[in-house]
Amino acid sequence: MSLAPLKTQTFGVCYYPEHWPEERWPLDAQMMREAGIEFVRIGEFAWSLMEPEPGQYDFDWLGRAIEVLAAEGLKVVLGTPTATPPKWLVDQMPDLLPVGKDGRVRGFGSRRHYCFSHLGYRDACARITREMASRFGKHPAVVAWQTDNEYGCHNTVMSYSDSAKSGFRDWLAQKYQSIDALNKAWGTVFWSMVYRSFDEIELPVGAVTETNPIHRLDFHRYSSDQVVAFNKVQSDILRQLSPGRAVAHNFMGKFFDFDHYDVSADLDISSWDAYPLGFLEREIGDEDLLKRHMGVGDPDFDPFHHDLYRTCGQVRNGTENGRWWVMEQQPYGPLNWGTFNHNPAKGAGRLWIWEAFTAGAEVVSFFRWRQPHFGQEQMHEGLLLPNGQPNFGYELCKEVTAELAELQPAPVQDRSAVALVFDYESQWILGYQSHGADVSHFDTVMRYYRALRRAGVNVDIIPPTAEALSGRKLVLIPMLMCVTEEFAAALADADCRVVAGPWTGAKTKNFAIPDTLAPGHLQSLIDIAVRRIETRRPFSPIPLKDGGAFEGWREFIMVGDGVEVLKSTEDGTPAILRSGKVTYVAGRLDAASLDDLLRAEMDAAGIEWVDLPQDIRMRDNGDLRVVFNYGPSEVEVGHLFGKGEQLTIQPADVIVRRMS
Amino acid sequence: MSLAPLKTQTFGVCYYPEHWPEERWPLDAQMMREAGIEFVRIGEFAWSLMEPEPGQYDFDWLGRAIEVLAAEGLKVVLGTPTATPPKWLVDQMPDLLPVGKDGRVRGFGSRRHYCFSHLGYRDACARITREMASRFGKHPAVVAWQTDNEYGCHNTVMSYSDSAKSGFRDWLAQKYQSIDALNKAWGTVFWSMVYRSFDEIELPVGAVTETNPIHRLDFHRYSSDQVVAFNKVQSDILRQLSPGRAVAHNFMGKFFDFDHYDVSADLDISSWDAYPLGFLEREIGDEDLLKRHMGVGDPDFDPFHHDLYRTCGQVRNGTENGRWWVMEQQPYGPLNWGTFNHNPAKGAGRLWIWEAFTAGAEVVSFFRWRQPHFGQEQMHEGLLLPNGQPNFGYELCKEVTAELAELQPAPVQDRSAVALVFDYESQWILGYQSHGADVSHFDTVMRYYRALRRAGVNVDIIPPTAEALSGRKLVLIPMLMCVTEEFAAALADADCRVVAGPWTGAKTKNFAIPDTLAPGHLQSLIDIAVRRIETRRPFSPIPLKDGGAFEGWREFIMVGDGVEVLKSTEDGTPAILRSGKVTYVAGRLDAASLDDLLRAEMDAAGIEWVDLPQDIRMRDNGDLRVVFNYGPSEVEVGHLFGKGEQLTIQPADVIVRRMS
Amino acid sequence: MSLAPLKTQTFGVCYYPEHWPEERWPLDAQMMREAGIEFVRIGEFAWSLMEPEPGQYDFDWLGRAIEVLAAEGLKVVLGTPTATPPKWLVDQMPDLLPVGKDGRVRGFGSRRHYCFSHLGYRDACARITREMASRFGKHPAVVAWQTDNEYGCHNTVMSYSDSAKSGFRDWLAQKYQSIDALNKAWGTVFWSMVYRSFDEIELPVGAVTETNPIHRLDFHRYSSDQVVAFNKVQSDILRQLSPGRAVAHNFMGKFFDFDHYDVSADLDISSWDAYPLGFLEREIGDEDLLKRHMGVGDPDFDPFHHDLYRTCGQVRNGTENGRWWVMEQQPYGPLNWGTFNHNPAKGAGRLWIWEAFTAGAEVVSFFRWRQPHFGQEQMHEGLLLPNGQPNFGYELCKEVTAELAELQPAPVQDRSAVALVFDYESQWILGYQSHGADVSHFDTVMRYYRALRRAGVNVDIIPPTAEALSGRKLVLIPMLMCVTEEFAAALADADCRVVAGPWTGAKTKNFAIPDTLAPGHLQSLIDIAVRRIETRRPFSPIPLKDGGAFEGWREFIMVGDGVEVLKSTEDGTPAILRSGKVTYVAGRLDAASLDDLLRAEMDAAGIEWVDLPQDIRMRDNGDLRVVFNYGPSEVEVGHLFGKGEQLTIQPADVIVRRMS
Repeated sequence: MSLAPLKTQTFGVCYYPEHWPEERWPLDAQMMREAGIEFVRIGEFAWSLMEPEPGQYDFDWLGRAIEVLAAEGLKVVLGTPTATPPKWLVDQMPDLLPVGKDGRVRGFGSRRHYCFSHLGYRDACARITREMASRFGKHPAVVAWQTDNEYGCHNTVMSYSDSAKSGFRDWLAQKYQSIDALNKAWGTVFWSMVYRSFDEIELPVGAVTETNPIHRLDFHRYSSDQVVAFNKVQSDILRQLSPGRAVAHNFMGKFFDFDHYDVSADLDISSWDAYPLGFLEREIGDEDLLKRHMGVGDPDFDPFHHDLYRTCGQVRNGTENGRWWVMEQQPYGPLNWGTFNHNPAKGAGRLWIWEAFTAGAEVVSFFRWRQPHFGQEQMHEGLLLPNGQPNFGYELCKEVTAELAELQPAPVQDRSAVALVFDYESQWILGYQSHGADVSHFDTVMRYYRALRRAGVNVDIIPPTAEALSGRKLVLIPMLMCVTEEFAAALADADCRVVAGPWTGAKTKNFAIPDTLAPGHLQSLIDIAVRRIETRRPFSPIPLKDGGAFEGWREFIMVGDGVEVLKSTEDGTPAILRSGKVTYVAGRLDAASLDDLLRAEMDAAGIEWVDLPQDIRMRDNGDLRVVFNYGPSEVEVGHLFGKGEQLTIQPADVIVRRMS
Repeated sequence: MSLAPLKTQTFGVCYYPEHWPEERWPLDAQMMREAGIEFVRIGEFAWSLMEPEPGQYDFDWLGRAIEVLAAEGLKVVLGTPTATPPKWLVDQMPDLLPVGKDGRVRGFGSRRHYCFSHLGYRDACARITREMASRFGKHPAVVAWQTDNEYGCHNTVMSYSDSAKSGFRDWLAQKYQSIDALNKAWGTVFWSMVYRSFDEIELPVGAVTETNPIHRLDFHRYSSDQVVAFNKVQSDILRQLSPGRAVAHNFMGKFFDFDHYDVSADLDISSWDAYPLGFLEREIGDEDLLKRHMGVGDPDFDPFHHDLYRTCGQVRNGTENGRWWVMEQQPYGPLNWGTFNHNPAKGAGRLWIWEAFTAGAEVVSFFRWRQPHFGQEQMHEGLLLPNGQPNFGYELCKEVTAELAELQPAPVQDRSAVALVFDYESQWILGYQSHGADVSHFDTVMRYYRALRRAGVNVDIIPPTAEALSGRKLVLIPMLMCVTEEFAAALADADCRVVAGPWTGAKTKNFAIPDTLAPGHLQSLIDIAVRRIETRRPFSPIPLKDGGAFEGWREFIMVGDGVEVLKSTEDGTPAILRSGKVTYVAGRLDAASLDDLLRAEMDAAGIEWVDLPQDIRMRDNGDLRVVFNYGPSEVEVGHLFGKGEQLTIQPADVIVRRMS
Repeated sequence: MSLAPLKTQTFGVCYYPEHWPEERWPLDAQMMREAGIEFVRIGEFAWSLMEPEPGQYDFDWLGRAIEVLAAEGLKVVLGTPTATPPKWLVDQMPDLLPVGKDGRVRGFGSRRHYCFSHLGYRDACARITREMASRFGKHPAVVAWQTDNEYGCHNTVMSYSDSAKSGFRDWLAQKYQSIDALNKAWGTVFWSMVYRSFDEIELPVGAVTETNPIHRLDFHRYSSDQVVAFNKVQSDILRQLSPGRAVAHNFMGKFFDFDHYDVSADLDISSWDAYPLGFLEREIGDEDLLKRHMGVGDPDFDPFHHDLYRTCGQVRNGTENGRWWVMEQQPYGPLNWGTFNHNPAKGAGRLWIWEAFTAGAEVVSFFRWRQPHFGQEQMHEGLLLPNGQPNFGYELCKEVTAELAELQPAPVQDRSAVALVFDYESQWILGYQSHGADVSHFDTVMRYYRALRRAGVNVDIIPPTAEALSGRKLVLIPMLMCVTEEFAAALADADCRVVAGPWTGAKTKNFAIPDTLAPGHLQSLIDIAVRRIETRRPFSPIPLKDGGAFEGWREFIMVGDGVEVLKSTEDGTPAILRSGKVTYVAGRLDAASLDDLLRAEMDAAGIEWVDLPQDIRMRDNGDLRVVFNYGPSEVEVGHLFGKGEQLTIQPADVIVRRMS
């Protein structure tokens, strides 16, 4: 394997040889190969076995495991074990432990018990990474690395330790250069917060009431930067000592505490951990959603992340389509970590895999090979039962391997004509000052994403950069809190239509209202100014003239030159406005109105779309068209293949057709 | 301005010159004057500008701001900046920080980061107050002071610091004189709590389960006393160094952690901060209320506080009608601190102002002049937009200024014939031992208040003192937990009818059941004894014979001599009892039954009332009659003006008529 | 009183002479006797009076109280006062205080402020127990002891103190002997947790995310063992210094934090504290239950505990029927500690007493004699009012005393043909890893218990031991998480039918999945293996073929030799399976299906049952048949007495008939 993207799509699996007797390993490897698995991730939680005593390394067992896998032709993804420092290391440096919002040290006993700001721990991680890379970095079977595991899981990006405090002060000093500059940027004149030196600045936690939002945002930026720095230490070592091998990290779902675009700049492959039923379980607030998609998962949640992390994979590679994997895929069985852990519906396992492959995944790697007897995850199913016999997931893997061999899909994915802007800082900003309890960047972007999915179009989810605009016909900006002058200029230059939603451009980089009011720099494209935002309880939508409504919030817009009001609320405030190629939506549109708006925009942009039946989703990959049924009923979908034939799709089923 | 009450009603505004370029100040002052504003509150969050380094004062900017305002004829209310000690002061005396219930220090970074028990901080506050008063106390434009800002906001009355522990022990020693006296008063024989010295007594926090309620009540009394003492340090200095200027403090809504009557004894003006839509948002448990009054606010919540704080203003002045202001009035726009932040309904801004003026406010002072770009409150609207242009609130101020000029209402308000007893200690007592989750002093009193509002009568909300009884025809005591011998005697002497509700007289001053059972000293007026209280879930009201019900709780009464049972429950316990002028209600009456009872009492007392249509409220002020519509529909109200004319009132509208 | 069981059933009362003037004591004693009370519990919260200064004892007042009671022929149950160490003792040894999950010391000021692991405190308890026992142990009126009070109340079994940490490490060292053995048993290879010595092991608390479940289970076992050890110190002293007196402890309802079977091994009498309306209040999740039984209590909750603690009483005595008391019985009035505190329905007080006596209680002892004026429990009713007059409960006691005299029921209770296995470790295991939010051992067992109650059969609730199986015809094992080889063998040997529910045998002693999969050792009786468990949200039951459903969860079973599938789910998984005398239920059956199954099993086992009307319950005690109405309506129950007569039972009423 070189650093070039894979040419085929195939399976992987997460394996813990250290959990099982060594004499079982050869059989495991053989069974993997027989099921069509090509990649095996190992090692990422085994530090206490690799270095049982301080400075005394034992890599022999790991070497033997690699040989056993290599002997079956399997390729190894080696994980650095830094997500779980051993107890002796914690005892050596107790202040490597993270500190919670409540000021308590978060102790040893599970995982991710480290503070990203602790430089001593960063050194220790460099050391174990160097040891591993020196030993295995050039092994022919080792084709890729995974750094650490699920950065930020269990709410660990933010740590309120002394290390973090001192690091944050340095970071502020670097950024602002003088305390006067910080005082001005932060508006510390508010509530008598003027600082005399960087050493007076505390972490934004444990105050009597809310702290200054820019204080919180800057600490968030700092914390995100520490994840980037932590990861870079390892990726630099790996590139040096393991040349030609790809570096990956496995991101999570609905997790935004650090900027994934930034971390991806130091990765060759972006990957993520996809657990459709666990994620659905978290949508507890929406019982209808849970009931309708029980056993299959939210039709748009995992796909959103496929389309997001594919772009992350692009950042470093600069390719049209980024390299990305599903590093952990829910097997065809229940998880252990949902509030409830539902059985997958018949067919759901195959649907998940096809959704990922169609979205361009190089590898779909199951978590995990064999269900463990012991430990926290003993109720998390694997491809094999705890007793080593094949479970349902193993049979499914075999089955789809055969399908892949027949259809030969490839991890190619053209840049989509439609792009949807998702921005980590906007997520943070809304987390610190949302003005309404149900206002969130992710949810807002997801509403647009769902509307696009209902129209059967491929979408790229992109950061707000000039580069990401190229080749687009329609760019959607549902809620980009800060529009930089550069991005406004890029939008002006780009040959595309633009739809911007409420709060776009509502803040400066310093978490302030722009001098010219929102939408700030977007005003160069559309001459409006926001004088007021109101947020309402879910029970009080704001009706629009001629139907539809804003659900929950809206802005009051002052309309300038050349701006046309396309739609107003019943009580007379402008609801949808247009100036040239830019359309501005001054509130949270109901789903039907959003469909209407986006479909009209796609028509104007010359993008084809279809009106998919409820619960049906569709993706094209090259000349393959894939149709998915996420609903509980059989649905007629023949028209989607354009052949005039009758064709029904069963619940949780997938239909794949070559269209050429 | 002398210390005499104002003769006219007018507007004020809260202004932060330090937030804006000095060259803007003259325009601001001019615009204020043009809008009819007369009073400007400044300075209360600017300590770190007034004293940028320890002991180095910079009052020049503040002096210049005062001159700019004075030049336009504006009058200044100067705030002491003690709600926000600067960082250097916190670093000098870190133990001035308050300590939370969880034992954690509540740190710097927002506001109110001080412990009322910390004597060192009290000295520092005396110092900055003295410095300010020396410089500006006799400035002709400075006509009043505000001490600190919103005592107790963010739950800061109670602090569990070492300062508080040592202060509390001293306070107990003063109160009880001997540890044996305390042991007896507290009943420490219960659960083996007998103390050998005051030094053994801990703060009532962090114990394994609930602590002795008198322990908690005494700590609450101690904590309230510290607020009084803290405030008195400043008011004493201001009276000395700024003679002839009024001293005010701005209280909050639905906030009872300290005794406002006690603090008011050291104030000339009682004022409060009125945010109708923010308060409504907090009534999340009552969705009907929220829906019905969305955009206007609870028809009785802000008025309740007007009627309460007017009485507070009376405490020191001994006048018939107390001096009181609305120091901060929600502008005609959304707030930033609600769970959701709704737009005011058309007309609501004017309605709020008229409700306050009719209730006798000298000044209604908007919060704030201009919406800030930065900081925690950047989404809180002002009269001006962040960019300095007039927003809706500014126009409204102008409009009502014209109305005031025409109608010339005055801040006179006769003592009302109906008085309603509200008592801070009762609120605390129920907080520590309510017997039922939905039993609260405030809610109980509010039920009576709403009934009176539905009958269109003016009400004074009073403390349980003899003085407050004079001139009343009907005194309502919905839930006065401890009836002192003195107050019982005053009631006996007073020439008025009395209605007392359940739990009245249920406790002694030592949080114990009276030897003669409840209602304790009230038994001298009505010969009954409470043998049992039951509290029920909301779904199980207790029906009364011939209609009506107790909602949620009731008492079982033993009936003595001369007591007539007017009404019983269906299962036979006495529900409403009477002896002479005293009526006793043995449970929580449903609204209709309460209306019937109170209206019958008003008839008996010779008090006029009207049966107001739903959502309509009415107040008389001198010969002005003002009618308010808090509901969503147009209502016919001609009959309220007694002229036989047809007259409808729009939603959120106000009709003001001179009746003479 | 000897250690032999009582021959009659009678009343007791909890009394605090130290709360009342000494001159009142004789009248109290006289009134007790007149009401039919025979036993008086005293002393359990009076340490600070017994030892007012360190080492200076004052037992005179207690001696005088005992004499006053003895003079009226009353028998005394003396409580050791160790639930409330005095302040001076806490100040001497501050680290005796327990530490909460949040790492905070749980302080002085209420009760139970001690850590079970603190050996210094254990010594202090031995000392005060020895002092009391030396003085009163052979007093003729002192017939029994109660150790401490309500072990574990207020969540005090688990303490995260340094004492606990060091004790836990020792306990682990004793149990596992070598750290390698622990590493293997715990599976520390998971997440890099390998330990090098016992000193590296932390308490399973405050980690970043969940700790290893066997780590938690072992700490729970350790903590339960400390309660046993703590109690044994006292019971050993009492047996030595107070020979011939019974030792009791008062357990609580729905409290499982320590193993009550284990503690009972050192007791002569098992007793518990029964508060039907307080317990019902806690069932807030089930509003229908609350509404239906408001004022009477859950028809099965208190009875479950009667049937459980009766067995606990058996452990030491080895008798057919264990000795057990209700040590604290809700009086015929409201409590103080419910969220709401409802009035008992007319008749409910008598119903509670008869349920206890029929279940075999030797003594029903009311809590408390007289409602206190002061302290935390001043709103908890007693038999007397705070002013010393009789309240409703006193009259009821007199009334039932007369009934008892007439009917002469005896505390005999034959071993029941039906036994239901309840297991403390299973409760803990599910608490640490339930796989579904609503899966609980207690709730599962309770479903079976309710089904048996609906069929009017007497039940014993038993631990999973061979001894407890003897004499049974039908043994129900709803959810025994770990089936030992010994218990499986005992089941095989026993001459009874067996019904086992899901998760039975799902874990090894080390909290791991058995090598042969669940149900582990039960596989020797029925050849099945569980490949998967799914848990579902309440809104998605799993329908069974031909009616009925699994509510919320089910297992996927691999069926082996000789196993018959009696019932399947609609989607084809085995639901009820049988092999010989063993029936296995692979999910949570709905109530009707469970009734059908258990009634068929009773038929097969030759056990008589009846189909009781809704809300009606029935118990036999010797030749007495007692029928209870827990519902809101009058019900016809003549057929239950087999005489063809018409007989209706009023709400909350009891009908007692001698059947011979």
